Amino acid sequence: MTATVAEPVADTAPDNTAPDNTAPESAAPSRGEQPEFAVVDGHSVWRRLTVRPGMCGHNSLFVGQVGDWTWETVTALCDTNVFAARDADGNPTYLAFYYYHIQGSPEFHHGGLTFGDRIEVASSSFDYGSESVLTLHRISRSGGGSARTAVDPVEFFEDPRPDCLYVQNFNRWVTRSAEGSNVGLVKSSPPDFRHGHLPTLPARYSPRLAYKQARTSHTFHDVADPGFHQVGTASFDYQIDITRDINGVGLIYFASYFSIVDRALLKLWRRLGRSDASFLTRVVTDHKLCYLGNADADSVLRVSVQAYRSVDDPRHEVFTVVATDRTTGRAIAVATIHLTTPEVSR
Amino acid sequence: MTATVAEPVADTAPDNTAPDNTAPESAAPSRGEQPEFAVVDGHSVWRRLTVRPGMCGHNSLFVGQVGDWTWETVTALCDTNVFAARDADGNPTYLAFYYYHIQGSPEFHHGGLTFGDRIEVASSSFDYGSESVLTLHRISRSGGGSARTAVDPVEFFEDPRPDCLYVQNFNRWVTRSAEGSNVGLVKSSPPDFRHGHLPTLPARYSPRLAYKQARTSHTFHDVADPGFHQVGTASFDYQIDITRDINGVGLIYFASYFSIVDRALLKLWRRLGRSDASFLTRVVTDHKLCYLGNADADSVLRVSVQAYRSVDDPRHEVFTVVATDRTTGRAIAVATIHLTTPEVSR
Repeated sequence: MTATVAEPVADTAPDNTAPDNTAPESAAPSRGEQPEFAVVDGHSVWRRLTVRPGMCGHNSLFVGQVGDWTWETVTALCDTNVFAARDADGNPTYLAFYYYHIQGSPEFHHGGLTFGDRIEVASSSFDYGSESVLTLHRISRSGGGSARTAVDPVEFFEDPRPDCLYVQNFNRWVTRSAEGSNVGLVKSSPPDFRHGHLPTLPARYSPRLAYKQARTSHTFHDVADPGFHQVGTASFDYQIDITRDINGVGLIYFASYFSIVDRALLKLWRRLGRSDASFLTRVVTDHKLCYLGNADADSVLRVSVQAYRSVDDPRHEVFTVVATDRTTGRAIAVATIHLTTPEVSR
Repeated sequence: MTATVAEPVADTAPDNTAPDNTAPESAAPSRGEQPEFAVVDGHSVWRRLTVRPGMCGHNSLFVGQVGDWTWETVTALCDTNVFAARDADGNPTYLAFYYYHIQGSPEFHHGGLTFGDRIEVASSSFDYGSESVLTLHRISRSGGGSARTAVDPVEFFEDPRPDCLYVQNFNRWVTRSAEGSNVGLVKSSPPDFRHGHLPTLPARYSPRLAYKQARTSHTFHDVADPGFHQVGTASFDYQIDITRDINGVGLIYFASYFSIVDRALLKLWRRLGRSDASFLTRVVTDHKLCYLGNADADSVLRVSVQAYRSVDDPRHEVFTVVATDRTTGRAIAVATIHLTTPEVSR
């Protein structure tokens, strides 16, 4: 999937000369590593699957895949086909991503996923009223006969396991207020969106506590924390790439912001004198991204990035990224990444 | 999935104040638009599914999704887990993409797929020996109780229906010859790869007839065809983007070449004085791509693109793209695209 074929491979594949096997049904075909799926209870679903090329790598495919799982989870639980939802006026409405948080460990981080890995995903949704919904995913290496359980919020927020990867998605229903424009999306949930049966989370777990800081400070990191000192900064303009960043309904694909953030990290990484090879082996243990505004297909973003290093552990670094609309100056996305670097710069 | 939430959306989602619904199981959850999958016969599988954000849009997600289907199809039919395959020496081996052909119509082309579309996919694999395999996909809008059939090669190659989209993937087993390098991949099929039971195709349908021309002429288009005249040309350098183009095993993701080709089209499109808006509404009815060599993560490609216009139908244009390794001068990828343009340039 991956490799384009090597140039030295000789063109020796036979054309139509394979042995004439007259017993095509002799072996039973398998299900081809098809995902298993089950509804666990009224607010949870479970999956077991094989990691495919289209959901891993040094790109935003994993992020996009988890986003699809969020839509599938809400579709399974809330009586609404999220993929084709419409508001009360009949206009298409989208369960847009507002806050996206990935939490891993050196033992299991999303950059380490590769072809053929067997994983299980427990996904649970929580009630945040008619206009939004929170979905938690807990991803573990498949151990065979493991239980199909709901996500335990206490484990998720207070006692995460090092052998699991946790993803939080906070989504809101939005629709376009003007044909052809992505600016000025307005709230509008579909009338059939059923949410009152979902459990609620204790207030201390509210995503708002996290993203409120991002909205006001444009970072999730406490820049006054004496435990970290700044090691570098960079900024650049990014024009929305209409061959990569536009989704199937003409809006900016939420996962593309992860690529833009990675581009910012790479810019600063190189400025710090580090190699591309070490960039590819960084271990991201925490990635928060908040979507504060919308860009249009012809927007140019001003992206700035700062790196901080832990005083106690020089391999622990924090990168904080802000993308603003160059024309309006408004913040579009704010991200903060914790990572373990394989290469400490000079 | 799509929309980042609009800035005008007020932060009014209630925290933990949703009604306490004590009957969480009152409505049966659905399967959340989970795909259906069936093995039809010894060389064919069938799917019905809902188009998700992660498999459509102005990007290469659809191309990557079909590639995953190819791997799943071969896994289901050939006794080999393609996602985790190893050669006789125990080295990872990949069913790499060598030739990729998408054929649609103005009625149904891959740029027209959007969230929530219901589609059915019939996929059949054909025998090309132990080192390669051909897989044909026929994608149709889901009509409810349609038959689960194999792909009919005559329909596929000689009598395609305007309401179907056809994709051909020709893949070869390759493995790395040197750790950490993507150059010099060598042939190596897994010992358990069973292929003799697959049907063979008549020689006239061989993908080799198509890609042989690409290998020698670096285009699938007959540039001497008097039915077309050249309308423009462009070229540029493209450095492999290690935040987007590297897959889960460190090789260049095959689908990224479709993005590179699209970038070439866009460069020339703008040079021809056309708008980004018209680019996004182009209708690609035929897209051939042949992977002739490999690039490394630090490669720079020289990409050149030519546009030709039909004498008889000025809206019918052909774009032909070649990507060569700037250092070695060797061709890495060759693509030819037929499209209907919504905007004829001056």
